[in-house]
This record gives sequence, structure tokens and C-alpha cells, in this order.
Amino acid sequence: MKEQGELQGNEHIREENSGESEPHPADSLSSDFRGLKVLVTGGMGFIGSNLARRLADWGSEVVVVDSIEPNTGANPANLRGFDDRIKICKLNLRDCSETTELFECQDVIFNLAGRVSHIDSMTDPLSDLSANVHGHLALLEACRRRAPKARIVFASTRQIYGKPNTCPVGEDHPLQPVDINGIHKVAAEAYHSLYHRIHGMQIVSLRLTNTYGPRMRVKDARQTFLGIWLRRALDGDAIEVWGGDQMRDLTYVDDALDAFCLAATCPAAQGRIFNVGGSPPLTLLELAEILIAIAGNGRIEIKEFPPDHKRIDIGDYFADDKLLRGITGWSPRVALRDGLTRTLEYFRHCLSDYV
Amino acid sequence: MKEQGELQGNEHIREENSGESEPHPADSLSSDFRGLKVLVTGGMGFIGSNLARRLADWGSEVVVVDSIEPNTGANPANLRGFDDRIKICKLNLRDCSETTELFECQDVIFNLAGRVSHIDSMTDPLSDLSANVHGHLALLEACRRRAPKARIVFASTRQIYGKPNTCPVGEDHPLQPVDINGIHKVAAEAYHSLYHRIHGMQIVSLRLTNTYGPRMRVKDARQTFLGIWLRRALDGDAIEVWGGDQMRDLTYVDDALDAFCLAATCPAAQGRIFNVGGSPPLTLLELAEILIAIAGNGRIEIKEFPPDHKRIDIGDYFADDKLLRGITGWSPRVALRDGLTRTLEYFRHCLSDYV
Repeated sequence: MKEQGELQGNEHIREENSGESEPHPADSLSSDFRGLKVLVTGGMGFIGSNLARRLADWGSEVVVVDSIEPNTGANPANLRGFDDRIKICKLNLRDCSETTELFECQDVIFNLAGRVSHIDSMTDPLSDLSANVHGHLALLEACRRRAPKARIVFASTRQIYGKPNTCPVGEDHPLQPVDINGIHKVAAEAYHSLYHRIHGMQIVSLRLTNTYGPRMRVKDARQTFLGIWLRRALDGDAIEVWGGDQMRDLTYVDDALDAFCLAATCPAAQGRIFNVGGSPPLTLLELAEILIAIAGNGRIEIKEFPPDHKRIDIGDYFADDKLLRGITGWSPRVALRDGLTRTLEYFRHCLSDYV
Repeated sequence: MKEQGELQGNEHIREENSGESEPHPADSLSSDFRGLKVLVTGGMGFIGSNLARRLADWGSEVVVVDSIEPNTGANPANLRGFDDRIKICKLNLRDCSETTELFECQDVIFNLAGRVSHIDSMTDPLSDLSANVHGHLALLEACRRRAPKARIVFASTRQIYGKPNTCPVGEDHPLQPVDINGIHKVAAEAYHSLYHRIHGMQIVSLRLTNTYGPRMRVKDARQTFLGIWLRRALDGDAIEVWGGDQMRDLTYVDDALDAFCLAATCPAAQGRIFNVGGSPPLTLLELAEILIAIAGNGRIEIKEFPPDHKRIDIGDYFADDKLLRGITGWSPRVALRDGLTRTLEYFRHCLSDYV
């Protein structure tokens, strides 16, 4: 039996309590999605593939669009076993004006495509522009022309806040991105808000924090530092902790999927932007210690920040996600230790697909 | 003898007083620029061409880069008579990685390229992305690699503030663009700030308000509403005033050039972002009445806002430009009536080049 913690938000820190699970608004979502036509961009990646699989299990007609490029989260193993239930379309979003028929008749479009590597964005900013800005504008234009009634949920990111002035960070915190990737995510989210406001499209943006779980990229730290940490723990290697006292919150992928599905179905959410939080915040060093304890393997090496990372580091971050909880009824259901346990269990069985 | 007004800023409204001109920090700029290698992007357009001509007159080695595309401010007539003193390079900035040698050895790069039409940006957002985002990122990458010591001044815009919460608008006002053009200008300005902060480049951004003067686009309202107003006044036609009670400030082009040149030469300005104001704010109706009185021609037709403009209209705007005045000593030197007189005089002689 899995331990499930129900998380409560308050002004400054989220408590994590174990307890019996109660009815959750996401429990009834499967019937809402049964028979719907749903497109998932970035659907071969970490969150996208988990979402596509859940939707296929719920009986949605699922199309995955993915550029399947190296150095992204795309991994064919993520959709293994779903060949007959998920249609895969290899497509870079910036070319989607050529295949607008793909978007016609879609009921819901989960727009999760994009690159998340801050360092890659600084060394190759034009590629980041193409993936994270051009692609989304082309998608929205295609939807405006061919699927103006589709509900769209965009995967935005805490990265757009930059270095927080104070924590927890609410949605009204100034946007002050510290790197090219952040600048591009600001633009992409602004497009989504604009297309709602000006063109009347039903669009919600979710600002994700560090999301983790099965099917994440663990080959390196491109998706999040936790990816490479998980791999090092499994391999019994040293986990490099840079600094260590930075506060972070984490979202287990299933909780993120709940947020995406609720955002798509909740009428009051349309046109809004929500932070998605999750676990109570903890320091990176505390997180590393918990991970090693659960894995029963690995060790910690505390290091100075490398200069190229230090100059774009954001210090502490954890989200105020009261708005999402209030409007959609969402709350995270998977406690950090449980989420890490499940994640390690997944990768123990198929790490070779991810390295 | 031209009337020159010295403008004083205060908390809420700028006074415009006629008076004897006093020493101005821009008076000594010509010697600073003599012999410098200067590149002006968008240099065939309105502000760019005025700047290129001034710099050539001051003895700078001037290269103009311009895509010379239709529906922009580019007009070959703007550089007429300067063929032997200004080198013109037809180039879209997004392709500048192919000709990075153009940027080597430049002392100063005035980056004025871009599209400013809000309506065009909504109907063809991908072209706006290419011109206003991709182009600037490519330029900054070229400069980072080949001209990291060059001083760069970027022409940003009040448009990034969107609909002001309050006026006058200071540089710390939230950025809440109301259209695609505004989203793109936010990104382009953020690039410039980032390349200063991360790569140590000397970069200043100037947020311009409505700038007017000789060589502006008067064929239509793509550059500013005032362009088409000037033409209608000259032709004795009706000036359509939408609404009429919106407050605006205006900058005469020579005052804008002072701001650009001071930004490039003032060490304390590097890395900063400045509003550029100008005339005391007035309503659009007052502006139209002044224009018609000076032109001795034209008439006013007050109209309802067309829907496609109303939904991206920003209401009142006028700048708080105390920061620019304080750091660089800049102040506007050309009173509104004088600027309009000079502008009408210019176009009376060569309107056929601009229609």
C-alpha cells in the first residue's frame, strides 16, 4: 500500500502529513476525458509521455507531437507498449503551419514541448528561440486558424520569475528571468495569455517547479538536477550538491498530471496562470540526504557552484500555489518520499533505456 | 531663428518653456564621435537615417545595415546625398551570423532595426518574431563573438509597458504588453540586458515614446499615428482622431538622437534602461488641433476606435524620464510646436518621396 500524504498550503511553508486519502477532484477526470481527442506536444518527453499514457488509459484518442531531438526529454521508451493506442507524429512545432489538419477537431491540446536546459540556452540561444518561442507561436497560430475551440494547457515554468525577491512566490511576482531560456518562456507564456485575451481561446498556463518521476531524463542535468542525482544514487556514485542550502519544492509527475487535466476541464481556470507546487520546500542538501537514504546507495559531495551555473542561479524558490488549489481544487497527493521511492523503483527496472 | 524650448521635468507633468538655450551635454558629442566606426541597424529608417546622417556629419565612419523591406520605415530617400559618406549594407539581422566581419572593429552599434506596427504584429506574428526577436538575438550573438567591446544602444519602446497602471510611467512599471509586438520588444530588450549582465558587454536600452520628425513614415500609421496625421494635414484631408482624450508625449527626432548619442558615450549609463520622454503630455485631440493650426490645413474627424485597434489600445501614456536626465544630463531641446513646424516644412518639400 502506497503511503499518500495530503499536502496543505499555508502562508509560508507547506506541511506534508501522511493520512488516509480523501476524494480528490482529479478522481473523476477519467470520465471527462473518455473519447476526447487530445494532442500532447512534447509527448515523448517526461511529463508529456506520462500524460499521454494516462489519457490513453482513460480512453482518449491521443496524438503525440514531438520533434524527437537529442538533448531533450524525448525518449521512445517512454511510450513503449502504447503503439496501438497513441499516434506519434514527428514534428517540430515551428513547422506546424504545414500540417494544420493535425490540430483540427482536437478537443484538448496539452502544450508541453520545449527545451528546459538553462545552460544550453546560453551556449546556443538561437536553437532555444526556435524551440521555445517560434514553435509555440506557430502552434497558437495553427490553433487560432484551425482549432479555435480547443482547450489548451501550456507548460510554463517557475524559471520566468528569475531570482525570487521573496518566497513563497505568487503568480504576481515580477518576471525577471536570468537566462535566455527564461526570457523565451516569458514570451511563450505571454503568447498564450494574449491568444486567450484577444482571440477568445480557452488557454491555461501552469508554472511548474521541479517535476520528477518515472520517464524523466536522468542522463544528465538538462531537465533538472534531480535527474542526474537519481542516476548517481542508483549507480552508487557521488551526488554533487552545489551550495546545498538553496530551498526548492518538487512536484511528483502524477500530481503535475492532475494539475494539467484539471486545468483543461475547469471552466473557472480558463485564461488564468497558476503556479504548481508540491512537496513542502526543503534544502538541496536535505533532498540529497533523503534520496540517498531511500536509495540505500550513493553519497554526497558538496561543491562550489561552477561559474557558468552560478551566474544564472536563482537562489531559493518555492511556490505559492493557493490559486490553483482554490480554483481547481487541486492538491498534491504523492509525498516526496513516496514519489522518490516510486521513481527509483521505475528506473531500477529500466535504467538502460535512459542512459 | 528657431524657437527652442527647454523642458523641465517634475513629478507629474513636464512644463514646456521657451527661453534661451543653455549649454547641453549633447553639444560636445560631435568630437566624441569623430573618427569612430559606427554601425546603425535600421539605418535607412526614420530615426536610424537621421542618426546616420548626424554621425556622418560629425566625421564618424558610418555603416548602415537595413533589410530594406516594405511596410517598414526604410526609405532610400532618407540617406540621399550621403552615398559617399555612409556605407549601406542590405541585410536582415537574423542573417548577420553570416557576415560577422561587419561587426568587427565597430566602436558603437546603434541597434534601431525592427518593426513597430502593432496591427501587423497581430496579423502576421511570425514575421514580427523574425524581425523583432530573432534578428536582435543574432546581432547580439555576432557582437558577443566578434565585437564584444562595442558599445551598443538598443531602441526599445514604451510599448512594453502595455496599458499603464498610472502616469507618468517610470522604468520600474510592470511590463504587461498588450500585443505581439510588445511581447517581442520585451524579449529583445531582455536580451540586451542579459548580454550586459552575463557577458559584460556595454549596452544601454532606450524606451522611446512617439518619436516624430523629418524622414518618418507618413504613408500610413504603421510607425505612429502621427505619420498619417502629418500627411493628411499637408494634403488638407481629414485627420481621424480615435477617441481623442488619450494622453501622449512626443519626442522630436533630434532630441531622440541626443539620447542615443549620450547613452553611447556616458559611462554611468552602461547596462541601464531609460525612458525617453519629450514634450509635455497632451491629449490626442489637443495634438491634432495644434498640428492643424501650424499646418494651416486639414480638419479633425473624431471617430470611435476600430475594434482591432481598441482591443490593443493602451489608454494614457507619458514617460517619467528623470533617470535619463539625471544620469546623462539629457533634456529635450525642441518644443512641440517647433518640431511640428520643422517636420511639416521637411515634408512640404519632398512628400512625393514618402507616399
